[in-house]
Amino acid sequence: MMDRSFMRESTRHFKPYYSPTSDGSLRLDTNTNVLGPNPAAMDALSDLSDIDINQYPNTYSADLRSVLAEFYGLGAENFVTGSGSDEILDVLFKTFTDKGDRTVVPYPSYSIYDYFSELNGGVPVPVDLDADFQLDVGSILAADGKMIVIPSPNNPTGNSFRRSDLLEIVEGTDVPVVIDEAYGEFHHESFIPSVRKYDNLIVTRTFSKAYAMAGLRIGYCVCSPEIADMMTCIRIPYSLNMLSEKAAVAALGDQDFIRRSADMVERNRPMLVEGLEALGFECYPSDANFVLARSPIDHRELVKGLKERGILIRDFGHRRLLENCVRFTIGTDEMNIRVIEACEELTR
Amino acid sequence: MMDRSFMRESTRHFKPYYSPTSDGSLRLDTNTNVLGPNPAAMDALSDLSDIDINQYPNTYSADLRSVLAEFYGLGAENFVTGSGSDEILDVLFKTFTDKGDRTVVPYPSYSIYDYFSELNGGVPVPVDLDADFQLDVGSILAADGKMIVIPSPNNPTGNSFRRSDLLEIVEGTDVPVVIDEAYGEFHHESFIPSVRKYDNLIVTRTFSKAYAMAGLRIGYCVCSPEIADMMTCIRIPYSLNMLSEKAAVAALGDQDFIRRSADMVERNRPMLVEGLEALGFECYPSDANFVLARSPIDHRELVKGLKERGILIRDFGHRRLLENCVRFTIGTDEMNIRVIEACEELTR
Repeated sequence: MMDRSFMRESTRHFKPYYSPTSDGSLRLDTNTNVLGPNPAAMDALSDLSDIDINQYPNTYSADLRSVLAEFYGLGAENFVTGSGSDEILDVLFKTFTDKGDRTVVPYPSYSIYDYFSELNGGVPVPVDLDADFQLDVGSILAADGKMIVIPSPNNPTGNSFRRSDLLEIVEGTDVPVVIDEAYGEFHHESFIPSVRKYDNLIVTRTFSKAYAMAGLRIGYCVCSPEIADMMTCIRIPYSLNMLSEKAAVAALGDQDFIRRSADMVERNRPMLVEGLEALGFECYPSDANFVLARSPIDHRELVKGLKERGILIRDFGHRRLLENCVRFTIGTDEMNIRVIEACEELTR
Repeated sequence: MMDRSFMRESTRHFKPYYSPTSDGSLRLDTNTNVLGPNPAAMDALSDLSDIDINQYPNTYSADLRSVLAEFYGLGAENFVTGSGSDEILDVLFKTFTDKGDRTVVPYPSYSIYDYFSELNGGVPVPVDLDADFQLDVGSILAADGKMIVIPSPNNPTGNSFRRSDLLEIVEGTDVPVVIDEAYGEFHHESFIPSVRKYDNLIVTRTFSKAYAMAGLRIGYCVCSPEIADMMTCIRIPYSLNMLSEKAAVAALGDQDFIRRSADMVERNRPMLVEGLEALGFECYPSDANFVLARSPIDHRELVKGLKERGILIRDFGHRRLLENCVRFTIGTDEMNIRVIEACEELTR
């Protein structure tokens, strides 16, 4: 009789991932780009005459890595691609952690790091953020991890971490330090240029957020050639499919869309925040395309009420330090008005 | 200084995967479909108006699993999808093996099983095939694995294994038995219907071979709902991208192309075999779209000579029990004539 006793021990408690039925709802729960699908990618996909789907893709995404190298002024040997930055994370855990190994992650943060750590037989070691949701550098360095993973801007809190804190961590350890810049396009600082200086630094990026291509599953990381070489041997060959690679190459060439997207977020963030605060929400500072807010009414009631009104947001209200908090993707003017009006109905 | 001592111990010897430069060569080295790209898939990809690449895909490929269920007369809960059957294999190793766990694989067989075993901290235990490349059932069952992985038809030998032997293995153990039917469409038997009876049986399939969609990275497995549920919790959410899912759904609806492809292979196999045997090659029996052949000249010389003539085949001549053997994908009439003529130049 096949039961969970056959599973790898560290994973027997796993449950399926967040997977709501949306049926036409306004999705402000996944932080995709509210301006809609990436136009350069769609344009590239409209002509597949240069593609032979019957052949295997580039084993290690040579085309995309070469364009990324040019874009960032680095070499192709500084990049590893994956089927979403999720695959990049999985590869990082496979490469640098073994059974029982500790990985240090801030808390509250993106729960998928814990999942990948346990998936790979390891132990996630959460280190609480301080009251301003900033890093506790001393505790992170003292936690004796085989790897340290920190998203900046952080999800779901929305703030980025102080550059000096992150540098202190990268300089204060020999183990790989992963800075997940999934929301990096919405922020003005990046650690990507620093991979030249620090051979234990890995910066991950995704095409799922600002690039508006979540459906195509494209991610990459930037790091020293030594780390890229190790990860390349661990990564499943051909894991990035041909169409996604082609679309990503095109999308990287249209920085105007990325700028417009980031500008829109920066312009509309205050509107959403002010609207929510006027209703009694407590909003946290954000450098990303979403806002974490503590609800003036019960979080379950709020999320359910919005869902009934055709709006999905993400509920974090049951998590420690995020009591009664929810996360809103920052919308267009229209979307924000609709969200605030719906919240007003629910909170008055 | 970042070096391989930071890597998971079982993977420090890993090298990058087979990745030849092809530049317009005739590729008879990867066993893709020589009839060309899947027409139904290309047709589906020519209209993306129903696709929003800015949203995440179905978390667990609901559309594809529902069509697969209908196709095989099983339930959606019997299927798990992945980015290629390679991802399915990785998920199987992650789900059912832990550090140091043994996985039993026949030898000679597909080397990627060893890679996935070690990648996941485990130990591959090869059990030699007999002189007819058939299974040593007793030794496989006695090898005390946490999982058993057997491709049928086998790669690179080309033959399928006796149904009675495979059944004896599935019935003789409680641990998961994976039958990799990557070349199943070219063979008249499948173990897929048997997942109803054996809850430790997992059959993997791919869209990369007969379906002619290797560039899109689509694979799946068929198994008991209990195993599918465990794998679903382990699989990276959204790992199959939207475009590939859409193309796979369409391709499954065009069985005529699959039949034509399998018929062509069956018709052309004797021609290739006879042509090679006339030149002194020793060919092994095949139930797949490729033929393993022992070369009458040094295998390196043969592979190099064919490459210079614009034809890529796969070299296995350095492997134990496959001394001086190479693998040819079975081509169309024209391709087979071209290959045989080139071999004639090299062997006379």
